[in-house]
Amino acid sequence: MPRTIVLLTDFGLRDAYVGQMKGVIHTHAPGAGIVDLCHQVEPFNILQAGFFLAASHPHFPGGAVFVSVVDPGVGGDRRIVLLEKHGQFFLAPDNGLLTFLLQQSGPSLSRDVTPARSGDASATFHGRDIFAPLAARLAGDTPSTQFGEECELKSLVRLPGAEPMPTPEGVSATVLHVDRFGNCLLNLENEAWGGRIFQCQRLAITVSASPPRSLCPAYTYERLERGQLGVIKGSQGFLELAMNRKSAAAELNLTPGGAVSVRLDRS
Amino acid sequence: MPRTIVLLTDFGLRDAYVGQMKGVIHTHAPGAGIVDLCHQVEPFNILQAGFFLAASHPHFPGGAVFVSVVDPGVGGDRRIVLLEKHGQFFLAPDNGLLTFLLQQSGPSLSRDVTPARSGDASATFHGRDIFAPLAARLAGDTPSTQFGEECELKSLVRLPGAEPMPTPEGVSATVLHVDRFGNCLLNLENEAWGGRIFQCQRLAITVSASPPRSLCPAYTYERLERGQLGVIKGSQGFLELAMNRKSAAAELNLTPGGAVSVRLDRS
Amino acid sequence: MPRTIVLLTDFGLRDAYVGQMKGVIHTHAPGAGIVDLCHQVEPFNILQAGFFLAASHPHFPGGAVFVSVVDPGVGGDRRIVLLEKHGQFFLAPDNGLLTFLLQQSGPSLSRDVTPARSGDASATFHGRDIFAPLAARLAGDTPSTQFGEECELKSLVRLPGAEPMPTPEGVSATVLHVDRFGNCLLNLENEAWGGRIFQCQRLAITVSASPPRSLCPAYTYERLERGQLGVIKGSQGFLELAMNRKSAAAELNLTPGGAVSVRLDRS
Repeated sequence: MPRTIVLLTDFGLRDAYVGQMKGVIHTHAPGAGIVDLCHQVEPFNILQAGFFLAASHPHFPGGAVFVSVVDPGVGGDRRIVLLEKHGQFFLAPDNGLLTFLLQQSGPSLSRDVTPARSGDASATFHGRDIFAPLAARLAGDTPSTQFGEECELKSLVRLPGAEPMPTPEGVSATVLHVDRFGNCLLNLENEAWGGRIFQCQRLAITVSASPPRSLCPAYTYERLERGQLGVIKGSQGFLELAMNRKSAAAELNLTPGGAVSVRLDRS
Repeated sequence: MPRTIVLLTDFGLRDAYVGQMKGVIHTHAPGAGIVDLCHQVEPFNILQAGFFLAASHPHFPGGAVFVSVVDPGVGGDRRIVLLEKHGQFFLAPDNGLLTFLLQQSGPSLSRDVTPARSGDASATFHGRDIFAPLAARLAGDTPSTQFGEECELKSLVRLPGAEPMPTPEGVSATVLHVDRFGNCLLNLENEAWGGRIFQCQRLAITVSASPPRSLCPAYTYERLERGQLGVIKGSQGFLELAMNRKSAAAELNLTPGGAVSVRLDRS
Repeated sequence: MPRTIVLLTDFGLRDAYVGQMKGVIHTHAPGAGIVDLCHQVEPFNILQAGFFLAASHPHFPGGAVFVSVVDPGVGGDRRIVLLEKHGQFFLAPDNGLLTFLLQQSGPSLSRDVTPARSGDASATFHGRDIFAPLAARLAGDTPSTQFGEECELKSLVRLPGAEPMPTPEGVSATVLHVDRFGNCLLNLENEAWGGRIFQCQRLAITVSASPPRSLCPAYTYERLERGQLGVIKGSQGFLELAMNRKSAAAELNLTPGGAVSVRLDRS
């Protein structure tokens, strides 16, 4: 059975771009299973795409081939790379999209798979003309060593701003994503930050110059009182600012990329 | 061949939530066919989800496994139930989502499949961590009797407001859904109400305190004159307020959950 | 292996309409591969759907069955037709949706496959009740000659306005589509117009009564300076008005169907 191919792009769904990628995959790998991870990454938001990929890959089978195309430099001289990790494969432009994956532990291999010649490929749609045929071959029996050349992991581009910054009072964090329900996902991993935050006596959050707002740690959305602002160890592996059936993003006027300052007070 | 798994959620498509559910299904049931019924149910709108399910299941093959996750009480003490009906399977939180299915005739069986222990499941994303693995097992060869315990059909939660209310002049109905074209689907089934409405001499509709508007019964959208407000025996099995290439919802200022009063006049 | 079935509609994704079509296909052709080309064609925008189809079909495998349902005349007396071209199959209402395909070269065959009786089909959702079962049969082994009767290619409806109009100074073109990034796709094919436009000394574009704006031909989006308006030989086979990480549509206030006048100046 061919491997599952997983697509992640900022192409949206009002165009035929994603459909054309699937057409190419069906042409080169008939019967391959294709899963849409998300196509509504904000245009050119590489950090958000990297977050989706890091939060999602553990839920996919071994051997899965992830094709991530958020690629403002398409047609320029950025590389195309293949990362192999935990038995899964990650194709992406080398623009920082793999930052979170590179931070996570575990052995990884990377290859520079930029085509030597562009052939018939369009200059502006490598997702369809370069990434999709590569993914189709990877999803078949072709071993990854037959693609391009090995390159050093440390040569891969990493995004600044992916890591939170400790402060004297707590931590300065970035909003990676706002979901449909208005939950704000922060770049604070549950494992690293959940313990410290859930044992605090008092928690407060500051967004830009607004006065601090107190935060209530909670186990589920439902346990928050109406109108109360909470923090949840979220299902995506990162802490979330949340409200009960209400948008925390609207309440705090936050969008992806926004900065928040969290104050932890144990006494 | 594994059974078809059909997904219905209020998760939207700007997040990776639906993709992660599919990753889990692909992990547990490689090769299963997955169909998206709809993921843009209004957040927490259980009645709308129930309508989509009731209107759609007859168009799917026997053995299909429907996974419906509109679940504001996730992580709380609501049950998870499995309804078996007409050879199809329906997994849902026990919050009223199955109301329309329970109203429809035909023998049904229900089981309480709430997990005894949550194990590694997140507290806030049971769609991925509980529903998806259950669906994958159901789509395989595991007989439904191996899931949880049988429970009484009458113990399942039913939503108030799903049934229309007859009035001296006609009927008071609820808007279940407004579609992309602005058609307003009412909780008036074609079979029960189509005959009475299509033999009326005069029909009028009142929305909140606005003056009554006359309604024209029509067979297709195209047969309505431009600007004319019509009622159609819709393809979803329910009567629709409609206009020709124009939004009836905008014309009447209606949204899902809205109430309309229909006056039937035979003389 | 059954043929790939490709769906193109204006049904959007907030309804269960597309899901129901897939349910019918899964019922009649279990295991068929279904690809969503696009479901967010503007409601009733036949020209835009025709553009998606023409730009996309070369990227799909031979034998693919394209089902295109943008069908404001549903339930009326418009025909349903099947076009066979380059070993692929195109089902559509005979309302002009196939205009671009009919303009392209290559032998084609067409059949009138309008059902003699509507049977149980709804009057308002032929996508599910007529197109989907036809597609499922076509994707199986049934030869196309068993569907309806051959009809003359020249009897098929063609849309006015699909062709650009040469002017003394250059050409008057129509915006076929605005993509998620704000690129404006014109009805000027790369092959026919790319050469002439890319060798111009000066290029300008006029939108309605606004003053002309100069245009810079570019190979990729990234090569345009910020704020500069460019024209690109696009990946869809048509020229695009574009900017670098900015919306040309917003800059020029253009929407699908909009008219632009391009002035070519060689001296």
